[in-house]
Amino acid sequence: MTEVIRSAEALREKVAGWKRAGALVGVVPTMGALHDGHLSLAREARKQSDRVIVTIFVNPMQFNNPEDLKKYPRDEAHDLALLEADGVDVLFAPGPEEVYPDGFASKVTVSGVSEPMEGAFRPGHFDGVATVVTKLFGMTQAGRAFFGEKDWQQVQVVQRLVRDLNIPTRIIPCPTIREDDGLAMSSRNVRLTAAERAVAPALHREMQAAAAAIRGGTAPDAALGAAREAILAAGFASVEYLDLRDAETLQTATSLDRPARLLAAAALGEVRLIDNIAV
Amino acid sequence: MTEVIRSAEALREKVAGWKRAGALVGVVPTMGALHDGHLSLAREARKQSDRVIVTIFVNPMQFNNPEDLKKYPRDEAHDLALLEADGVDVLFAPGPEEVYPDGFASKVTVSGVSEPMEGAFRPGHFDGVATVVTKLFGMTQAGRAFFGEKDWQQVQVVQRLVRDLNIPTRIIPCPTIREDDGLAMSSRNVRLTAAERAVAPALHREMQAAAAAIRGGTAPDAALGAAREAILAAGFASVEYLDLRDAETLQTATSLDRPARLLAAAALGEVRLIDNIAV
Repeated sequence: MTEVIRSAEALREKVAGWKRAGALVGVVPTMGALHDGHLSLAREARKQSDRVIVTIFVNPMQFNNPEDLKKYPRDEAHDLALLEADGVDVLFAPGPEEVYPDGFASKVTVSGVSEPMEGAFRPGHFDGVATVVTKLFGMTQAGRAFFGEKDWQQVQVVQRLVRDLNIPTRIIPCPTIREDDGLAMSSRNVRLTAAERAVAPALHREMQAAAAAIRGGTAPDAALGAAREAILAAGFASVEYLDLRDAETLQTATSLDRPARLLAAAALGEVRLIDNIAV
Repeated sequence: MTEVIRSAEALREKVAGWKRAGALVGVVPTMGALHDGHLSLAREARKQSDRVIVTIFVNPMQFNNPEDLKKYPRDEAHDLALLEADGVDVLFAPGPEEVYPDGFASKVTVSGVSEPMEGAFRPGHFDGVATVVTKLFGMTQAGRAFFGEKDWQQVQVVQRLVRDLNIPTRIIPCPTIREDDGLAMSSRNVRLTAAERAVAPALHREMQAAAAAIRGGTAPDAALGAAREAILAAGFASVEYLDLRDAETLQTATSLDRPARLLAAAALGEVRLIDNIAV
């Protein structure tokens, strides 16, 4: 039985009881519209914690685009049924006025890793992420938090954040879950038309081809240029970025001396897709 | 026996042991150069907590003026002796590289209450305060934190911060401790010359006179103007601000319908003094 909690105060009391009993609390922060990617996080949380909280909050502060916020898919009843089936203890689903009450005036910013890519194309996005994650860690008092590597840059921002602010929550990154054709699972995928859905796997496919070429000795610029052309040729409207980066600092990588990551964002019709893979 | 701890990791282990035993931890954040004001906070922490941590960290991030940072008084051996005498459990005194290691990239900002007065005259000051306080609360996992009302605006910023970020630390404001002649105790007072020290109580005295006048029906502008003149006539070099403000929001107050506070900063020789009183 998954208990639905909507106020920070009620959550605090619930967690305090668990803590008195010595339980390790795991949290999976989400924006709802749950798919197998989220559920894999909840299962990992189940394995690594005594109590599991999944949070659903479509955080207005991290949406730079009001249309994207409006169109973000929401289906709490369906989400709850999935969490019940997975034995999640608490669904914490606060409203915006609970998270940002009148008079709210604080902001957490992380510079550096937050600046390129998503940070450049979605101004303010990572301020919103860092602020709400800090709040969710405060509210849940979680010892562990589970994040999908699908949002690789977000994971690096959150890792930096908890280290910098001495937040006693350990971040557990979990692998991206993909459809059979390679498309990374995302709540935004439901907004793709059938024709777009058929095109969508090209992003991951061309990223894999570029990664293989780079590993094989092709100069990164040449491999990335070819992949960009192929993604557009497949039917994507634009490629916002397709970058080879240091996996941790997210600085541009020009060699494979350190762990590197290939990261991309591309628009398909009205939907913006992101993906990343190891190189 | 007060244990001196310098690393966040060692502190974390110490606190984890206390927490397992069910102890409520109280923290008194300071910048050292301890005086009776600080010790009154430590005594209050002793009363309201099972374990008491006093932190000493001269936080470079909250000093807008490098000269002020350089000249800030430091005497850890003397401080430790005072804390020993008061039965403080731990003195947490990390170095700057422990608090801000290489790669540190995060910042906490609080708008609104942080903007006038100290915020206007010390750009970046409250970002530094909010960031280090968030870190100290994370490091100490304190259930209660004790702050002096001497820094009234700081107390409001920290209250806003913990509410906004759902930090599970309760802020306990404690009254300003004064010398017999009314001068608010401050670590910076040791930098006053004997002549300046004789002049210093004029700040509090003229504030009291202005507050009495306002309570008696004098228009705030007139009362504050007269006090400003009197403070300068007494020998202060300048009055940065002398404001009647809402005690909580710190918006300018024009009446006494809500709790109001008179707050001031003034320069005496090379020393900047601040004070505040209820009206």
